Amino acid sequence: MSHDHPTLQLARELISRRSVTPDDAGCQQVIGKRLQALGFNLETMLFEDTLNLWARRDSDEGRLFCFAGHTDVVPPGDEDKWQTPPFTPTDIDGILFGRGAADMKGSLAAMVVATERFIDKYPQHAGSIAYLITSDEEGPFINGTTRVIDTLEARNEKIDWCIVGEPSSTDYCGDIIKHGRRGSLTGDLQVWGIQGHVAYPHLARNPVHQAAPALHELAETVWDEGNDAFPPTSFQISNLHAGTGAGNVIPGTLHVCFNLRFSTESTDEQLKQRILAILDKHGLDYAIHWTHNGQPFLTDSGPLLGAAENAVESVTGRTPVLSTAGGTSDGRFIAPTGAQVLELGPVNASIHKVDEYVSHQDLINLTDMYEKILYNLLVVQN
Amino acid sequence: MSHDHPTLQLARELISRRSVTPDDAGCQQVIGKRLQALGFNLETMLFEDTLNLWARRDSDEGRLFCFAGHTDVVPPGDEDKWQTPPFTPTDIDGILFGRGAADMKGSLAAMVVATERFIDKYPQHAGSIAYLITSDEEGPFINGTTRVIDTLEARNEKIDWCIVGEPSSTDYCGDIIKHGRRGSLTGDLQVWGIQGHVAYPHLARNPVHQAAPALHELAETVWDEGNDAFPPTSFQISNLHAGTGAGNVIPGTLHVCFNLRFSTESTDEQLKQRILAILDKHGLDYAIHWTHNGQPFLTDSGPLLGAAENAVESVTGRTPVLSTAGGTSDGRFIAPTGAQVLELGPVNASIHKVDEYVSHQDLINLTDMYEKILYNLLVVQN
Repeated sequence: MSHDHPTLQLARELISRRSVTPDDAGCQQVIGKRLQALGFNLETMLFEDTLNLWARRDSDEGRLFCFAGHTDVVPPGDEDKWQTPPFTPTDIDGILFGRGAADMKGSLAAMVVATERFIDKYPQHAGSIAYLITSDEEGPFINGTTRVIDTLEARNEKIDWCIVGEPSSTDYCGDIIKHGRRGSLTGDLQVWGIQGHVAYPHLARNPVHQAAPALHELAETVWDEGNDAFPPTSFQISNLHAGTGAGNVIPGTLHVCFNLRFSTESTDEQLKQRILAILDKHGLDYAIHWTHNGQPFLTDSGPLLGAAENAVESVTGRTPVLSTAGGTSDGRFIAPTGAQVLELGPVNASIHKVDEYVSHQDLINLTDMYEKILYNLLVVQN
Repeated sequence: MSHDHPTLQLARELISRRSVTPDDAGCQQVIGKRLQALGFNLETMLFEDTLNLWARRDSDEGRLFCFAGHTDVVPPGDEDKWQTPPFTPTDIDGILFGRGAADMKGSLAAMVVATERFIDKYPQHAGSIAYLITSDEEGPFINGTTRVIDTLEARNEKIDWCIVGEPSSTDYCGDIIKHGRRGSLTGDLQVWGIQGHVAYPHLARNPVHQAAPALHELAETVWDEGNDAFPPTSFQISNLHAGTGAGNVIPGTLHVCFNLRFSTESTDEQLKQRILAILDKHGLDYAIHWTHNGQPFLTDSGPLLGAAENAVESVTGRTPVLSTAGGTSDGRFIAPTGAQVLELGPVNASIHKVDEYVSHQDLINLTDMYEKILYNLLVVQN
């Protein structure tokens, strides 16, 4: 009976733990126990407030497959707005409700069950299997995956293939595989003028007036046209503030915060130079602080992509669409090591919202897909 | 010794009272006592949070001269940034420091002392002398001068000549007499977009991006060229806000507050229409709330102007320049009654800033000028 599928049972156990970022709330222990029973070696990496688990099972000296995921969830918000309590997993008509059901405790459960089945069938498989589990993917992502990767890099431990269990799908599990992500670059811009009284504009210099043509140009600039894998680079002003609150004071400073999501047609350095050129052209007196949130990455060929496409096709009967749209994920920290990285997980329609859910069938299918990926990479290919 | 001049003594007493708008902090009582001793009839007009004083001394049925002023001051801001405590009047090298020294407790003190001297010399002068003192000139100016004027109008009490003690001067007291003021029009503009995630710009509409070309055009528009009495109309954005604070959210609304100071070459209605045309041209989804703060006025001839010019010349040896530049003052509420209105007061370089100051010599000269104006109007002319 699908309702008693082991993936659902484990997903419920994880959802019932209130692991609001960066609190793991014991989820990694639950997962670790299951992996330990399969012969995984567990390594807990605690960085500041963030608990991370690096679990690895070596079968031979071949390639390393890694599943990357997170046990933390975004806060539930006002719990009264939920139809069912967010940390009480609830099944209604073949749907599992609860915070993290889709992002991404369902994926974690599916991968654990897939691994158990796979090792049961192919205990002598080639290569190695690892789990990189963090508890800060939804937080500031400072002490999570990026620091685990730093640790692995320092000891020359390389991931060859990585599936990130993020909810990549739109209508049914597997309809979309994210095979890359845009880069993200944030700028905090201060434009300085000279504060003064609106009645004496000749004694002041209004930074809003000075910046208006530059903002106009930034908003209208075509940064690139994108390419087959990526939409065009987009620029968005997210925050804009000037003024003392008083209606008769010309502000002394304008603060502009903007973000670019950029394709592989642009680099962060190119974008920075182009933005600075626009600011300089308009003669602004300014300072800018950049935060580089991640380079774009793309996995458009190779064994991992073939294994995943085949897995989706064999389970759903349909070919997945490859996409690089959407927000960032921890894949951005793993890809720069040279790993092939894909994201494959449940439907993301309800994530970060009230009444987050995943369908039973999707989690069962995802378990089968993950198992098939392991088979394709560690039995067929090796 | 100039340091003990009675104007300085009274100015210090007023500065030491923390009369941040709309709090009078007892200043009007200090002034009222001095005027009462001269035979003034005091009438306190309390409107909501605002204390106003209408003091009047009638000598005969002739013309009414009125001194208009305010006891409230703008907030000192961060008091640690002041070299001397803002509400502790401090004399350094012939300069009196303190919040309100120039705007306008110094003028109030000068007028009180000038009146005392004048009445002492000419107790049988012609006409009447009045003081219209408010405590909300720096605030929303709703319950101050405008309501006192309403009260006077209702009982048909007419001011013929009015000196407003606002700091009109640039380099030394009396170099500039303000013989009119521009009009003031404020707009509160909301531009609506559609909020969204920066990673999905096609699902959102950024109101900052949409408004940037309109703001650019508004900032560059030449509204008029001014005329002999007025500088060109000026437009200034005073406040600008958009964004949730989060760096990954496209804001749903942009809020822009702007102000126009306008000459007699433009009317508020013309300006509104031109601004709406620019907003419409750029296809913005917006709402705007207008606040009309005052029509422009001009006193370019008459006994008051002659009396004031003569007073400045006799004290400084130099002819004052007539100007309509600068901010609004409560003169805008008095001029529409038919009164001749001029503004004559200290140097305004430090007003509304830290370390506000007035020179001893300027306050002493201002006392002499005010006394001379009383003499010119109420002894020579009548």
